[in-house]
Amino acid sequence: MSVTRFLLSENDLPTTWYNVVPDLPKGLPPMLHPGTREPITPADLEPLFPQALIEQEFSTERDIDIPGAVLDVYRQWRPSPLVRAHRLEKALQTPARIYFKYEGVSPAGSHKPNTAVPQAYYNKREGVQKLTTETGAGQWGSSLALACSYFGLECAVYMVRVSYDQKPYRRALMETFGAGVTASPSPLTEAGRAALAADPNSTGSLGLAISEAVEAALNSGGTAKYALGSVLNLVLMHQTIVGQEALRQLELADDYPDVVIGAAGGGSNFAGLALPFLRRQFDGEPAVRLIAVEPASCPSLTQGTYEYDFGDTAGMTPLTKMHTLGHDFRPPAIHAGGLRYHGMAPIVSALKDIDLLEARAVPQLACFEAGVQFARAEGIVPAPESTHAVRVAIDEALECRAAGRSRTIVFSLSGHGHFDMQAYLDYFAGELTD
Amino acid sequence: MSVTRFLLSENDLPTTWYNVVPDLPKGLPPMLHPGTREPITPADLEPLFPQALIEQEFSTERDIDIPGAVLDVYRQWRPSPLVRAHRLEKALQTPARIYFKYEGVSPAGSHKPNTAVPQAYYNKREGVQKLTTETGAGQWGSSLALACSYFGLECAVYMVRVSYDQKPYRRALMETFGAGVTASPSPLTEAGRAALAADPNSTGSLGLAISEAVEAALNSGGTAKYALGSVLNLVLMHQTIVGQEALRQLELADDYPDVVIGAAGGGSNFAGLALPFLRRQFDGEPAVRLIAVEPASCPSLTQGTYEYDFGDTAGMTPLTKMHTLGHDFRPPAIHAGGLRYHGMAPIVSALKDIDLLEARAVPQLACFEAGVQFARAEGIVPAPESTHAVRVAIDEALECRAAGRSRTIVFSLSGHGHFDMQAYLDYFAGELTD
Repeated sequence: MSVTRFLLSENDLPTTWYNVVPDLPKGLPPMLHPGTREPITPADLEPLFPQALIEQEFSTERDIDIPGAVLDVYRQWRPSPLVRAHRLEKALQTPARIYFKYEGVSPAGSHKPNTAVPQAYYNKREGVQKLTTETGAGQWGSSLALACSYFGLECAVYMVRVSYDQKPYRRALMETFGAGVTASPSPLTEAGRAALAADPNSTGSLGLAISEAVEAALNSGGTAKYALGSVLNLVLMHQTIVGQEALRQLELADDYPDVVIGAAGGGSNFAGLALPFLRRQFDGEPAVRLIAVEPASCPSLTQGTYEYDFGDTAGMTPLTKMHTLGHDFRPPAIHAGGLRYHGMAPIVSALKDIDLLEARAVPQLACFEAGVQFARAEGIVPAPESTHAVRVAIDEALECRAAGRSRTIVFSLSGHGHFDMQAYLDYFAGELTD
Repeated sequence: MSVTRFLLSENDLPTTWYNVVPDLPKGLPPMLHPGTREPITPADLEPLFPQALIEQEFSTERDIDIPGAVLDVYRQWRPSPLVRAHRLEKALQTPARIYFKYEGVSPAGSHKPNTAVPQAYYNKREGVQKLTTETGAGQWGSSLALACSYFGLECAVYMVRVSYDQKPYRRALMETFGAGVTASPSPLTEAGRAALAADPNSTGSLGLAISEAVEAALNSGGTAKYALGSVLNLVLMHQTIVGQEALRQLELADDYPDVVIGAAGGGSNFAGLALPFLRRQFDGEPAVRLIAVEPASCPSLTQGTYEYDFGDTAGMTPLTKMHTLGHDFRPPAIHAGGLRYHGMAPIVSALKDIDLLEARAVPQLACFEAGVQFARAEGIVPAPESTHAVRVAIDEALECRAAGRSRTIVFSLSGHGHFDMQAYLDYFAGELTD
């Protein structure tokens, strides 16, 4: 059997992040101030973010150096493996070559620490004492909790109620790393109190939890700032370490993808893998199909409109031009909590608008079916979010079989499902719906 | 910062297992038949195990080839990383160099697949259709479930009641891999019914679950055989891939241990890491301190007697000479379910008897304290079993600090605690006792 895992040594760790913004053919529409509706300035973001991150958000540099202290943390698990899914290929009887980039090896079990670590680092460097944030499935919250623990920051997490109830062990993980966790909507903020007044049984949403975390930072008297796990340009940029590694690993495999696939909630997982391949295209290499996969029940890219909208529910964040279902959209309580977001990263939205990526929406049951098939073949139980990419990778491989042609498929296995086993129990019990 | 993770490519995977039996200075006392009390023969074991495994159990060869089909599965996650615990060293302000061999990267999250995979493979090759087994914390059960899924075997797991109740998601993992799971004691076997009659609220024990799994295999009409996750010579041998890799990785680190530490329930985790170092000693290299760590509440090596005893509660297995608390010992329901075993592997017991290893018993609370300290420093939440090794590694490092001398400490981080978060919640809530 040919090689299974393509590994790089920590000396091969990329030392810069890739900023796609200067390469975007039509640029990126500016963020607008929520009060004035004028383009926001770096100064407008100072109450929320440290200087270094604001500079990154507005940067027009193509390559941004990764600080040594961040690389030292990345080394704990990076470079992550690129795995050839030999057994899945065999189970599918497909001539396709399937690779997955496995981010579940990180301490928090997903790609999220790739941005949590630099965000915590830059905040610490600028004297911030505490970070507030929201979390959906808990992947982001546990990543930020870990990063804060590494750099000696306090961490307050607003966790979407439905996940808080479904995933007590995700909460336990955050607490093990030293964070405080509150169910959202909570009585601690104005936004939370308003939501509870409107619906005391609210299961919450990412948009609302963002409102609460932002409000908590703004009301901290300057001691706390806010951290966001997706959507922002800087977050997508931090995640490009994933795709950069994958490119080097595919060189080891002497292969190159025809199609690159990632699940997209806020968009950073998809973008982290896809953007470095897009860069090659900008530099004159042949195009690769890039497929962003979202849940059919929260289809911002495939069904949303491309317009200015708030990032949160209460309208406290800047307005960004993005594919959105409306900031008051309430997604159903599906198990892929990390994909329950009304909007999409401006960068991913801009790429979709000029047809540089494909979007596909897939229903929940078909995703779990793919997740179980993957687990039995490859031994890794995917996070519910990641099963969306697995589903489309399998569909593409089955198309190859039907057409009798080989293709190289690379997808992001963004996290493991060790804290999502209730979802699998529900799936086996026939209690999930589309 | 110097290197953090010492990685080997899959081409560096060891291709043989190390069998310590021919190297034991005083040999190994024979197993005795439970009926006749005469030394058992290979034929006596045929109802339970396939030929190839029986040959391995009795083998006097020093090196046994690993089949290619097994190596192909190992490649999914092996070689596992050896990690320099830079951040833990810093947190402890110790001059010691601490390394851990991390087996949590396996699909089931522990070292157990190292033997589950060859056991499933050899059974399949000899036409067995189904494997029965017991599991404590669930690490072994999920490993065998996975291995059976890879090789197309049915899998029936008897799970110790206390873990079945504490760890529903471990059960979900086994079911995701396709296994059937029954709480032990169960009404399905004579041994289980007897235990339930004696105590309807029995929380079970590994010894009893073994009785049930053995009985189910013996009553299968020849279609099923039994698989054991520890204790046997062949199991310890399969685990030596861990220590062999660690030796090669320490060469990369240009270092060599003064002390090697592993948690010991049945003994295979400890032995898997330690035996290849002992081999070096047999071959004339300087001795390394080998420390087997067990829970204070189930102290077979430190408090048990070295005598012939049954491996199970009901007295169905062969008698082996080992350190034992008595086959009717009922360990308290501590969270390190994988260490709740009344006996100890004959090989480990024989080494203890001639002072080739040290044994240490540590209480539960001190272990969780060490586990949390490790998690906050290194980002990995250890399985409760593994916290026993973490505890002693930290103690050794603190001794180095007190004495102002450096030492090289290598320990086995045998698994992650992703399915054990209830234990951490209980610990934080002050609900655990020693």
